[in-house]
Amino acid sequence: MSLLGSQLHNFASSIWHLNRSITGEGVRKTLLAIKEVLPNLSIVEIPTGTRVFDWVIPKEWAVREAYIVAPGGNKICSFAENNLHLVGYSRPIHAKLKLEDLQANLYSLPSQPTAIPYVTSYYNEHWGFCLSQQQRDSLEKGEYEVCVDSDLFDGSLTYGELLIKGKSNKEIFISTYVCHPSMANNELSGPTVSTFIAKWLSSRLDNRYSYRFIFIPETIGSIAYLSKHKDLLKEVVIAGFNLTCIGDNRDYSYLPSRCGQSLSDMVVKHVLKHICPTYKSYKWTDRGSDERQYCSPGIDLPIASIMRTKYGMYDEYHTSLDDLTNVVSPEGLEGGYNAVMLAIEALEHNKYPEACVLCEPQLGRRGLYPTLSTKFSTNDVALMMDLLTWSDGSRSLIDIAEICEVPIWDLYPIVKKLVDKNLITLHDLAV
Amino acid sequence: MSLLGSQLHNFASSIWHLNRSITGEGVRKTLLAIKEVLPNLSIVEIPTGTRVFDWVIPKEWAVREAYIVAPGGNKICSFAENNLHLVGYSRPIHAKLKLEDLQANLYSLPSQPTAIPYVTSYYNEHWGFCLSQQQRDSLEKGEYEVCVDSDLFDGSLTYGELLIKGKSNKEIFISTYVCHPSMANNELSGPTVSTFIAKWLSSRLDNRYSYRFIFIPETIGSIAYLSKHKDLLKEVVIAGFNLTCIGDNRDYSYLPSRCGQSLSDMVVKHVLKHICPTYKSYKWTDRGSDERQYCSPGIDLPIASIMRTKYGMYDEYHTSLDDLTNVVSPEGLEGGYNAVMLAIEALEHNKYPEACVLCEPQLGRRGLYPTLSTKFSTNDVALMMDLLTWSDGSRSLIDIAEICEVPIWDLYPIVKKLVDKNLITLHDLAV
Amino acid sequence: MSLLGSQLHNFASSIWHLNRSITGEGVRKTLLAIKEVLPNLSIVEIPTGTRVFDWVIPKEWAVREAYIVAPGGNKICSFAENNLHLVGYSRPIHAKLKLEDLQANLYSLPSQPTAIPYVTSYYNEHWGFCLSQQQRDSLEKGEYEVCVDSDLFDGSLTYGELLIKGKSNKEIFISTYVCHPSMANNELSGPTVSTFIAKWLSSRLDNRYSYRFIFIPETIGSIAYLSKHKDLLKEVVIAGFNLTCIGDNRDYSYLPSRCGQSLSDMVVKHVLKHICPTYKSYKWTDRGSDERQYCSPGIDLPIASIMRTKYGMYDEYHTSLDDLTNVVSPEGLEGGYNAVMLAIEALEHNKYPEACVLCEPQLGRRGLYPTLSTKFSTNDVALMMDLLTWSDGSRSLIDIAEICEVPIWDLYPIVKKLVDKNLITLHDLAV
Repeated sequence: MSLLGSQLHNFASSIWHLNRSITGEGVRKTLLAIKEVLPNLSIVEIPTGTRVFDWVIPKEWAVREAYIVAPGGNKICSFAENNLHLVGYSRPIHAKLKLEDLQANLYSLPSQPTAIPYVTSYYNEHWGFCLSQQQRDSLEKGEYEVCVDSDLFDGSLTYGELLIKGKSNKEIFISTYVCHPSMANNELSGPTVSTFIAKWLSSRLDNRYSYRFIFIPETIGSIAYLSKHKDLLKEVVIAGFNLTCIGDNRDYSYLPSRCGQSLSDMVVKHVLKHICPTYKSYKWTDRGSDERQYCSPGIDLPIASIMRTKYGMYDEYHTSLDDLTNVVSPEGLEGGYNAVMLAIEALEHNKYPEACVLCEPQLGRRGLYPTLSTKFSTNDVALMMDLLTWSDGSRSLIDIAEICEVPIWDLYPIVKKLVDKNLITLHDLAV
Repeated sequence: MSLLGSQLHNFASSIWHLNRSITGEGVRKTLLAIKEVLPNLSIVEIPTGTRVFDWVIPKEWAVREAYIVAPGGNKICSFAENNLHLVGYSRPIHAKLKLEDLQANLYSLPSQPTAIPYVTSYYNEHWGFCLSQQQRDSLEKGEYEVCVDSDLFDGSLTYGELLIKGKSNKEIFISTYVCHPSMANNELSGPTVSTFIAKWLSSRLDNRYSYRFIFIPETIGSIAYLSKHKDLLKEVVIAGFNLTCIGDNRDYSYLPSRCGQSLSDMVVKHVLKHICPTYKSYKWTDRGSDERQYCSPGIDLPIASIMRTKYGMYDEYHTSLDDLTNVVSPEGLEGGYNAVMLAIEALEHNKYPEACVLCEPQLGRRGLYPTLSTKFSTNDVALMMDLLTWSDGSRSLIDIAEICEVPIWDLYPIVKKLVDKNLITLHDLAV
Repeated sequence: MSLLGSQLHNFASSIWHLNRSITGEGVRKTLLAIKEVLPNLSIVEIPTGTRVFDWVIPKEWAVREAYIVAPGGNKICSFAENNLHLVGYSRPIHAKLKLEDLQANLYSLPSQPTAIPYVTSYYNEHWGFCLSQQQRDSLEKGEYEVCVDSDLFDGSLTYGELLIKGKSNKEIFISTYVCHPSMANNELSGPTVSTFIAKWLSSRLDNRYSYRFIFIPETIGSIAYLSKHKDLLKEVVIAGFNLTCIGDNRDYSYLPSRCGQSLSDMVVKHVLKHICPTYKSYKWTDRGSDERQYCSPGIDLPIASIMRTKYGMYDEYHTSLDDLTNVVSPEGLEGGYNAVMLAIEALEHNKYPEACVLCEPQLGRRGLYPTLSTKFSTNDVALMMDLLTWSDGSRSLIDIAEICEVPIWDLYPIVKKLVDKNLITLHDLAV
């Protein structure tokens, strides 16, 4: 097992037990754990009741305990044991109900009898318990004592933000969410990979672009963030990724920005094609995460999603089975990290080369071309010649890699050699 | 049998017997019958000899009677019995000929022995009779008396026109032709469906667009009309249809405008795809009706053809077999009417929605979204969300229906709901 | 055997024996032979040492004799017998070597044991002999006398140029190379076909365009020519072809310009598709001749290659087996000539027709349309009508031929008829 994979998996394990939701202490503790890796992380609070576009920041939710006592006296569905047992944002209740009355507030999945489903009710006051179908089927008739010792109160919504300044004030924007309780692929993998990508970028001295990471609750968090920072983001963000479901080892997946043609789309498709030719390419219709906000009309940020197996496309999704043992693995997390890293490196390298001499240069006298011409000699330097022939200042390195049908990273050493020999110059923008 | 189908079929039957040609009383009587349904129809005359672009309005043609008397005294090929027996625009003649001399002026179809073919000679003085191959084969040797009691005289070319004013002076242009004698799909179906579509539009109080219908003789009629009204049409017409061969129940067909990319093309393809996924899509090369004039270089109107089975693509075409019994049916006419109506409704609805709030609106508090989030809840409102996400003011409702792969009419109730809730506004043009 | 095919083949045979290289008497004698056919050919010399972009004109190479004397006294690898025996640009040497020491300077092809390979070393001082693998395997141990009586001296690089003036100063540019010793497809076929195409164009009195032919050494020749004439060429050249490997009878091939969308590309693809539907279409990645220079960034001339079987794609390529008996044939040369001629005729005819009348003209009164309309009459003039309908001034004749799916030469007689009847006018450029 690789060191990086273990690091990522250990970090995810360390924050597994926290009761994340769209607000509350679980989010704050998760952000503090991230801040231990990223000391410059800012933790921001937005008060309950703040208007954010069409939405209002909801009350903060706190849970002290929640459980059901069965007729025989057994305590079941204990929140302390598994935070998925309690419907997210359940209001307080303490009552005794007959089983037949309790049923309306119980949630289970007949098709997955061992799974506790993940259910929330953020914007409508409600309470409920989730349990496996097996457990539900075994409940005896009788009177049940229901206890939800929770609060819904004027508090705040919490998110984390980190800006890593590079040479340019143009930004790459990376968003991930921290509102899911104890589930691994959706969604400890996202903040885990994001945290360590941010750590890697923080350690580099010469980043071309600035990098903005946000760790937010899904939907309300991105809407709140955009309501504060939309104008800045529209000015500086040239590409960005939504990182979610990025820790299993089964697949690689891409979901486009709304326009589908942004730099982010181009780079994700390029990277995934070369690390996993059979990767899944979804459509905008399949969207379901914060890209819905980032790409909404009038916002129009160039945000694409990089995933391993997409939310909704694996059986364990949104159940207790989405864990760090069977679903998310060190290899899966490392593969996700690697894909994001390659995409960022591609953006950093994605300049517009322009040839410095007219016609082909004489590579031979520079030691870059065989001096003896035989029937078979011409292919040796084909990729170098192809890069040169497309270096007309109008094509980026990703464009050229696409034309040449090679991964962009195959071009990095050639670009370096040609720059060193003064045969090409690199422009930031198309000329 | 539906009421509408019967109405259409009855109307076609009522004008079946008239001797339509490119000029003459048959056209006038047909237009008067249409005027009974559409009282505002104008009937316009253009005098013989009028120059219309490269053409000249021909003499008017009148036929009192026409027949052949066979050697045994039998009267055959009587115009009174079937107007197809006489070659269109036959000059007067009264003569006795031997069968072998008569043969050069007889027309029949060896491959369809029971069919009387439809033959015309508009621009070259000629006479002739058409008969079935069976009848022709049974003719005995001997002397035949030929009588064509016709006139070719300075009169006029007649057409009908109806303008139904809407809120906008921008027009949808619908053209159909009334120059074919007793044949059903080509061409009583065209004026029949056009008449009743015009009746429907006349009964609506709130048409978005104005509608211009013309009932003309093919080719010379459209050329004459364009020579008078080209500048106006080029200014106001945003879409239009040539309605022909629209009464049989075998197929649906589309023939594009010359440019192939007009609003008319887009709407016809959209409608036919959804009412008949296997519809035939022809090319401009396959053209053969008045679109040849409307789309000619320098005219360039956006006119596409909506058809059931295209002219030339069914055996009975241009023969006496193209009748109201075996070829055109109430169901066929109603299907054609329905396709045109759906296309017009699509044009009326084809505005450019723009979202009124940034980011996704909170549908839940408006009762448009389920408040409880479970593993399976997100698909219920998917089409509404898709419409919202594409409501960026740059895409028309047809564009959005195409992206969402649904018929545009599935969007009408959703658009209404979103407009009512102030979540989108509708623009006439892309913003 | 056709007269033209024989002429082409005889001309190639007459210059077969000359020791062409990138400089030297073999090139001059080849150009003098071409000048006998094209008296206006200019022969131009560029002195050794002249800087041409990133390159320098090399020393001139002369060979008086070259051979090896085997231990038994036999003279082998005699340059006088086959100029391929000597590595191109071999420096002088007179020495005695043991076989094992000689081996490092011998070149053969194990996979083609009867072929003498073609090897050069232009830009690095070297000497060597080429021989068949069979001959090499039969060499006895012992001492060999090696003699290369050559000179590398300050002389010049020689090329030929012919400008045939047409009505327009816009030019079609044709480039071929004359630097290969005794090999037939690559590369006597190129100068042979080019010479006779130039002869044909010189004999025409009314060429629309001017035609510039250059006969150059490959790579260094095109670079040298461009370094002198780049600005003129960029101003006047509207299309052009690199003619190479154009004398065998196995295939037709096209290699695009770098942009792939130039007029040259369009015309070559159009012609080859219609004379050989299975022709090979290569990509820019497959390039390997002077198009590398003509299309390089900053030069960007619209030069495509017309070939029979492409260099590198036939076994005999760059060996003594590429001869005038088994590879290049009269039929092959004539087929290549014909393809180039059709491409040039297409360019000459490639004007933009515009209809002179609005709507369809009345072809009947001009004798261009049948006057009797029957069920089957409309197809007879379909291509004329199609040409008319696309004559909107925005489409060239090649565009229209592509739309109509006919070879452009099928349109020439129709265009003439329509121009004669004043139904269309022809524009030089899109209107």
